[in-house]
Formats: sequence, C-alpha cells, structure tokens
Amino acid sequence: MKQRGVTHGARVTVRDIAAETGLSIATVSRVMNGRANVAPHTRDLVLRAMGRLGQHVPRRTDPEPAGGAVYVRCPYVLTDYFGIIVSSVAETLEVHGRPVVLNAGEAAQHAAVLPGLAGRTSLSGAILILPPEPGQELERLRDQGFPFVVVDPRTPPPRDVPAVSAAHFAGARRLMTHLVELGHRRVGIIGGPRHWLVTDHRQAGYVAPLADVGVLPVPELVRFVVEPTTEHGYRAARELLDLAERPTALVAFNDKMAVGALRAAAERGLRVPDDLSVAGFDDIEVSRATQPMLTTVRQPLEEMGRMAVNLLIRLLDAHKLDALHVELATELVVRGSTGPAGVTY
Amino acid sequence: MKQRGVTHGARVTVRDIAAETGLSIATVSRVMNGRANVAPHTRDLVLRAMGRLGQHVPRRTDPEPAGGAVYVRCPYVLTDYFGIIVSSVAETLEVHGRPVVLNAGEAAQHAAVLPGLAGRTSLSGAILILPPEPGQELERLRDQGFPFVVVDPRTPPPRDVPAVSAAHFAGARRLMTHLVELGHRRVGIIGGPRHWLVTDHRQAGYVAPLADVGVLPVPELVRFVVEPTTEHGYRAARELLDLAERPTALVAFNDKMAVGALRAAAERGLRVPDDLSVAGFDDIEVSRATQPMLTTVRQPLEEMGRMAVNLLIRLLDAHKLDALHVELATELVVRGSTGPAGVTY
Repeated sequence: MKQRGVTHGARVTVRDIAAETGLSIATVSRVMNGRANVAPHTRDLVLRAMGRLGQHVPRRTDPEPAGGAVYVRCPYVLTDYFGIIVSSVAETLEVHGRPVVLNAGEAAQHAAVLPGLAGRTSLSGAILILPPEPGQELERLRDQGFPFVVVDPRTPPPRDVPAVSAAHFAGARRLMTHLVELGHRRVGIIGGPRHWLVTDHRQAGYVAPLADVGVLPVPELVRFVVEPTTEHGYRAARELLDLAERPTALVAFNDKMAVGALRAAAERGLRVPDDLSVAGFDDIEVSRATQPMLTTVRQPLEEMGRMAVNLLIRLLDAHKLDALHVELATELVVRGSTGPAGVTY
Repeated sequence: MKQRGVTHGARVTVRDIAAETGLSIATVSRVMNGRANVAPHTRDLVLRAMGRLGQHVPRRTDPEPAGGAVYVRCPYVLTDYFGIIVSSVAETLEVHGRPVVLNAGEAAQHAAVLPGLAGRTSLSGAILILPPEPGQELERLRDQGFPFVVVDPRTPPPRDVPAVSAAHFAGARRLMTHLVELGHRRVGIIGGPRHWLVTDHRQAGYVAPLADVGVLPVPELVRFVVEPTTEHGYRAARELLDLAERPTALVAFNDKMAVGALRAAAERGLRVPDDLSVAGFDDIEVSRATQPMLTTVRQPLEEMGRMAVNLLIRLLDAHKLDALHVELATELVVRGSTGPAGVTY
C-alpha cells in the first residue's frame, strides 16, 4: 500500500472562514491561494480568521494538478473554428498545470452560468469565448472579483476586462484592398449577425478601400445573416447574384458562408474566378476543400487561445495588464477564388 | 452580504481515511460518494473509520454542481470530427450536473495522464476518446477501479471496459455495395493508419461486397496513411491514379482524405463522377463544401458522445451494463461524387 500524504488534525473550510469574516468564498479562496489581487486589509482579515479557526496552510500531497481549475465556456459546437481555439486554450492551460473545466455545445447558450461562477471555490478563473451574455453580466462577474478573459467579444467588453480577438477591421480592409486592386468596384458583402461587434468591425474594413477609390456603400449589396452558416451564406449569395446588376465579387463573413456562395454561383453557371470572385474569412479546413480554393483572411486561432490563457495567468498572478484589449494580426491568404474583375457592367 | 451554507466543526479529509484504512483515496472517495461498486467489506471499513475520525456526511451547500467531475480526454485538435463528439459529451454531462475536466489538443498525446487518474479525488470517472495509450494502460486503469468509457478505441478495448464506436464494418460494406451496384470493380482504397482497429474493420467492410461479385483484393489498390489528413489523402490518391491500370473509384478513410483525392483527380483532368467516383467517410462539413459534394458514410458523432456519457453514468450508478461494446449505426449518404463506372478498362 502506497503511503500518501496525510493531513492530521481539524480543518476548517473556506466556507467557515467566509462566514467568520463576512467575505465572499471567492475572496477567501483568493487569499488562501496566495493571490495578490486582494486588498491588504482583506488579506489580514482572512489570515487572522484562519489563525483563530486553526486553518492549516493547505499542503498539496495528492496527484491533483497544482493550479486552480479554469472554467472554459464556449457555448457553440466545437467545430473547426471554436474547436481550434478551445484546443489551444486547453493545451496552454495544461502547460500551466491548470485543469480545464469545460462548458461547451450549443445547449450551453441557454444556461445561466455566469452568476454562479464566483461562488465556485474550485475555480480560479475563466475564459469566455464569444459570450452570448449581455455586457452587464460580464460587468457583474468582474465586480465580484472573479478573474476572467473574453475571447471574441460579441459586444464591446467592459474597459477593464481583458479581451482577445483577431484584428477584424484590418483583415477585412486588407481583403477588400486585394479586390479593389483586381478592379472590383461592385462587391456584394455577406455579413455576419447584425449585432455582433465583429460584423461591425469587418463592415468598416470592407467599406474603407472602396471609399478610397470613390465607391460609396450600396445598401442593396449588403446582407446580414441570423447565423453564420453555409446555408445562410448560400441564401444571401443567391439574392446578391440575382440582382439586376450583378456584383463582380462576393465577400463572406466566414469560409463556410463563402462555400455557400460558391454553390450559388455554380447553380447559376458562373465560373469562379472568371465570372465572379468569392472570398471568405477564417482560413479553416473548408477553405482548402473547394475548387478553386478560397481566398480568405487567416485568423490566428491558436495564438488567440494561447494569448487568452497568458492574460488570465497574469491576472491570477496579479500582474498589471498593459494591453487589456488585445487584437492579434490577421493575414490575407490569396488562392484561386479571386481574380480580375470582368467587364460585365 | 449573502449568507452561505456553513459547515461547522472538525473535518477529516479523504486522505485521513485512506491512511487510517489502508485503502486508496479513490476507493474511499467512491464510498463517500455513495457509489455501490465497492465490496461490502471495504464499505464497512470506510464507514467505521469515518465514525472513528468524526467525518461528517458531506453536505453540499455551495453552488458547485452536484455530481463529481468527469475527465474527458481527447488528445487531438477539436476540429469537425472530434469537436462534435466532445461537444456532445459536454452537453450531456451538463444535463447530468457533472463538470467536464477537459484534456485536449495534440500536445496531450504525449502526456502520461492515465496512471494518475485514479488518484485524483475530484474525478468520478473518465471518457477517453481514441486513446493513444496501449491496451495494458487501459487495463491498469480498470484494475484500479476507476470508471471510464472509451470512444473510438484505437486497439481492441479490454472486454469489460465499455466502448462506443460507429459500426465501421457495416458502414464500409454499405458504401462498397453502392459502388459495386454502380458497376465499379477496380476500386482504390485509401485506408487509415495501418494499426488502428477502425482501419481494419473498414478494410473488411470494403472487401466483402467486391468478393461477393468475385473480385479479390488487389494489394496495389490499397494504401494506408500515417495520419488521416487531406495531404496524405492527396498523396495516396496520386499514387493510385497513376497506376498503369487506373481505378474507376476511390474510397477514402475520411472526408478530408477524399477532398485530397478530389484534388488529385482535378490535377489529372479527371471529371468526378464521370471519369472517377470518389467517396469519403464521416459526413463532416467538408463533405458538403466540394463540388460535386461527397458521397460518404455518416458517423453518428453526437449519438456517440451521448451514449458514452450514458454508459459512464450507469457505471457510476453501479448499474450492470448489458452491452459493453456499443456500435452505433452508420448511414450511407449518396451525393454527386459517385456515379456509374465508365468502361476505361
């Protein structure tokens, strides 16, 4: 029989100390875990209560990982886009010896998990990916002193909550510049969900290079979708391609939607890129499965996951964060689906 | 200040009881969690020790989920195939009120995590997806009394370890029957990694319908790959299409590899399906991104995730499991990439 580490004598719980001091469990837990993002007065309060109640400094002798667990919430199916971010988050947290408590899948969108997070003593922090919750809920979580980082904020994140995303404006602008240089002036834009922050940033990026050559936005050339799926991309592309004056190029919110656009083009006998240029965004697997392969904008998904973990770890270590809202560079990937504009108009 | 549940008085730890009884932490934990898969003698031992040491029956008053956490190990990037399984596992565990502790990403393949699992008292069980570990490691984990379920076993799982997979043999046979009915007799097979159980089962499924019409396996028509990626599918397809006597159809281990095959065909000016039929396996997003879309075999990924959780929950509740090795039905999905065999030979 293997001898394991044993803690003898009475132990009080985090809850005992919380009750004794009137502080929240999360705060007591932070002091006990030796974190520094606690006011000195609060720390003294906890340490004195621990002395009174006889709490041992926790000794770790079991094979549990060393750091507190991190809650990773990704309320979407973990397919190519989200799955790559979550994999990178998990790998990086593993390096830091912190277990990942996962909340994932579309059903998770309907669960109200944020209000309970700060009270879960086994959790030391969270990474929230494209959180569907309104900004006030994020602010409330921050007010509870619970450390977390947002990846791909859906709405503008609170100023002092760290957030990581790709440089959507710059990526969209670079892509549209490519199309403008190829002579495209009448470009159909298949945007994302209308109220997402990222849709707004991309839209601004698409508009700028056209404006630079004197082309103003044309409302009939812009479509927004409810969900960024292949099917919605297909439907929006059909509408745009059936306009009296057809666009010479389509840019889609993501690669899946661009695949839908390719399908709509094929149904109309349009050759890509001779008759129509099509571009996506993301650079996931499907962008290389089509013929021609898709011109797209690469999002640094793995880097986003790593960066989110690094920000959170710094937060847990009570480092001051210099850049709270981090935008990681995107890259234009030119493939066969874009070419010179024809002279159809 | 919100009043939280408080447990007053001395508490001993699981480790105290383990030391007192000479039992493992995992066993003590199982008794304390009220699980029934413990010998009566062992249970008595623990309960008596708990009485001597004054252990309270644990009262849950904090907002932590009710059930013990489940360790989900998927040492691959969570893209379309694995990500869908993990999402389904996470959603189903959420329904059961059990937190998911995730271990994912390719880096995780090199971590020796199985030996430590049984000692992690916060874990009640595990779901291991396509575990890269040799069978002996799984047997050792089972011998430690740690409950787990395997999804997609890479090698034959121990007889008494529950396993879930798709019906690979039946799915492959159904697909090849479809091709045989279309007149194909010379079919190139792009198999998976040679030593995977699933590669073997699929191979048997492909061979059967051909044998039924008097066609014996031709070694030059079979390729195995190191990794089931698009690139490896492309390379294997090139070799098969450059044979002196070209196959009239190619079946690939998965949809990504079939995409590689389509690319190899396009480079050679072969029209699909007129000059060459191509089929995949899985029915993930890329199978609908190609033109023509891929004929494939749908794997019930979500059902596999749900079934794995249900088997594990029954195991944790100490139910007898009737069917330890569960194979879920696959479905042939016929799309545009397969058609009648030409008369090229």
